[in-house]
Amino acid sequence: MFNEEVVLGIDIGGTNTVFGFVDKNGNCINQGVIPTNSNESAENLFDRLFYKVKEIMKNNPELSEIAGIGIGAPNANYYKGTVEQPPNLNWGTVNVIEIVKKYFQVPVAITNDANAAAIGEMQFGSAKGMKDFIVITLGTGLGSGIVSNGKLIYGHDGFAGEIGHVCVIPDGRECGCRRKGCLETYASATGIRRTVFELLANKSSQSSLRNFSFNELTSKSIYEAAVEGDPIALAAFDYTGKILGKALANAVNYTSPEAIILFGGLASAGEYIFEPVKKYMEENILNIFKNKVNVIPSTLTEGNAAVLGAAALIWNELNHTPTMKSEVENWDLM
Amino acid sequence: MFNEEVVLGIDIGGTNTVFGFVDKNGNCINQGVIPTNSNESAENLFDRLFYKVKEIMKNNPELSEIAGIGIGAPNANYYKGTVEQPPNLNWGTVNVIEIVKKYFQVPVAITNDANAAAIGEMQFGSAKGMKDFIVITLGTGLGSGIVSNGKLIYGHDGFAGEIGHVCVIPDGRECGCRRKGCLETYASATGIRRTVFELLANKSSQSSLRNFSFNELTSKSIYEAAVEGDPIALAAFDYTGKILGKALANAVNYTSPEAIILFGGLASAGEYIFEPVKKYMEENILNIFKNKVNVIPSTLTEGNAAVLGAAALIWNELNHTPTMKSEVENWDLM
Repeated sequence: MFNEEVVLGIDIGGTNTVFGFVDKNGNCINQGVIPTNSNESAENLFDRLFYKVKEIMKNNPELSEIAGIGIGAPNANYYKGTVEQPPNLNWGTVNVIEIVKKYFQVPVAITNDANAAAIGEMQFGSAKGMKDFIVITLGTGLGSGIVSNGKLIYGHDGFAGEIGHVCVIPDGRECGCRRKGCLETYASATGIRRTVFELLANKSSQSSLRNFSFNELTSKSIYEAAVEGDPIALAAFDYTGKILGKALANAVNYTSPEAIILFGGLASAGEYIFEPVKKYMEENILNIFKNKVNVIPSTLTEGNAAVLGAAALIWNELNHTPTMKSEVENWDLM
Repeated sequence: MFNEEVVLGIDIGGTNTVFGFVDKNGNCINQGVIPTNSNESAENLFDRLFYKVKEIMKNNPELSEIAGIGIGAPNANYYKGTVEQPPNLNWGTVNVIEIVKKYFQVPVAITNDANAAAIGEMQFGSAKGMKDFIVITLGTGLGSGIVSNGKLIYGHDGFAGEIGHVCVIPDGRECGCRRKGCLETYASATGIRRTVFELLANKSSQSSLRNFSFNELTSKSIYEAAVEGDPIALAAFDYTGKILGKALANAVNYTSPEAIILFGGLASAGEYIFEPVKKYMEENILNIFKNKVNVIPSTLTEGNAAVLGAAALIWNELNHTPTMKSEVENWDLM
């Protein structure tokens, strides 16, 4: 029935929505991008998106059929096919799979971007062949996708994998979730900026970072300062790595992963972040886990990693065990 | 080939080793106990144990065949079938499945007691019908078994589920694992005794607990004092519940369970421990998980819960998906 060659991967971000036609080997054959227009409805977004998608399908005979559609979106519920009160989109709660089914009668799956990244790493990236690992996405916040025994952990309600909201400093920094001391207030692009400002306040060292306003400062500028040997930037990476390393030492106690994969902007700082993360993780890890857990970078290319993740999500469903397959088939009847 | 009616469940403790013949419905048809003699070898223990087991099998024709053997033991590695450097047994690292196979050519599975308890709850207890839950055993230490999507999480090395060693108070109480601030130094029978002594030192309230030495004090005596309204005992339960509740609020972020089941001595204090655990968990939990996670007591009878758990472990293997079945069959060739 389905063309087994290509699926459509869609990544819905606050600013842009990116899509790509992806084959089983993770090759992105054709892709495109449209503005998300976060104030508009989900229906409007998908109408604009699929107009563009169908145009490409018409002009490229090899893409005239797709085997399925995978979607990464904020606050996505894998079980229900919904997106629920996403913080950056004016959608409320909406059933995305129902909307998509009006345009394409193929299997559709949706999850959040960190979960999609985890499946992407398993299918196409650093986690190929692994059955137990954790992906940590270090973006504006900290997302996580946990794979155990070869399967993503969705949890009872579809929202598992919120390691960014584990409390690491009691009564610590205010978090967007209205609680205090969450990991993502320290270990994320925003977190390291907050750390730089704390260090600039507490220390008297010269630093090129004293010329940036909070709004101007990016994790890239902190990285560039670190490369120049800036003491505040170096201390900020060390502190970020310390908080993240200790948190990962705790995380290992839950699912005992073979590897932890760091993904996203902050992870591109390379050894400036990996070295302290590994050091503090090993220093704080339970004896039985010592020197067992690799901390490694993502090998999905940053540019279309989110689309690859979304595509991997649906490839994973299509190739799955009989149970999963029948679930996918049931979705067609929705 | 196998008698499908009965399996043998074995729980190896530091003092006693308990065994029972358990049917598919969790009925313990016959049972026994021998001293573990922790200074002797594993071979010696199993030799004494199976002598007794075979005697029972000879005298009870309905028990003349068993379908499998499940074992709960400290530091047990599910994947390798080994027990590795158990703290209370003078065994070193030993392959238990190989030893057992000399006596019985049936499928054998081994895991630690908290994991066995989790499978026991799923098969026979509070977690019947649940696919995502966590069992916390509150004994001398704090053990945990995490079930996700209907399967126990063993992790890459077989040692997943060490929530007792998540650091909850940076630089907190010394733990047997040689680290500081582990959850089990606060939330366990030993933990609440330490809390009582801290409170007795810091507060000046009258308390019947001022008559106990540290070695005399038990969690049962603290419970009895709490029932009498003793302010130190009540404060100790509140503090224990606060630390555990906050830790569970964090734990939910990983696997988003439907329920958390408390098991073991301290859990029998009922509302004295459940009420503060629930209160502080809800106060500290991420919004999307609020009022979703039940905290409930185990319904396995304390007396033979460990044996039921060990029996459930092997029933679970025997009834499993084709993949698991073939693994079990392979074990026969070991």
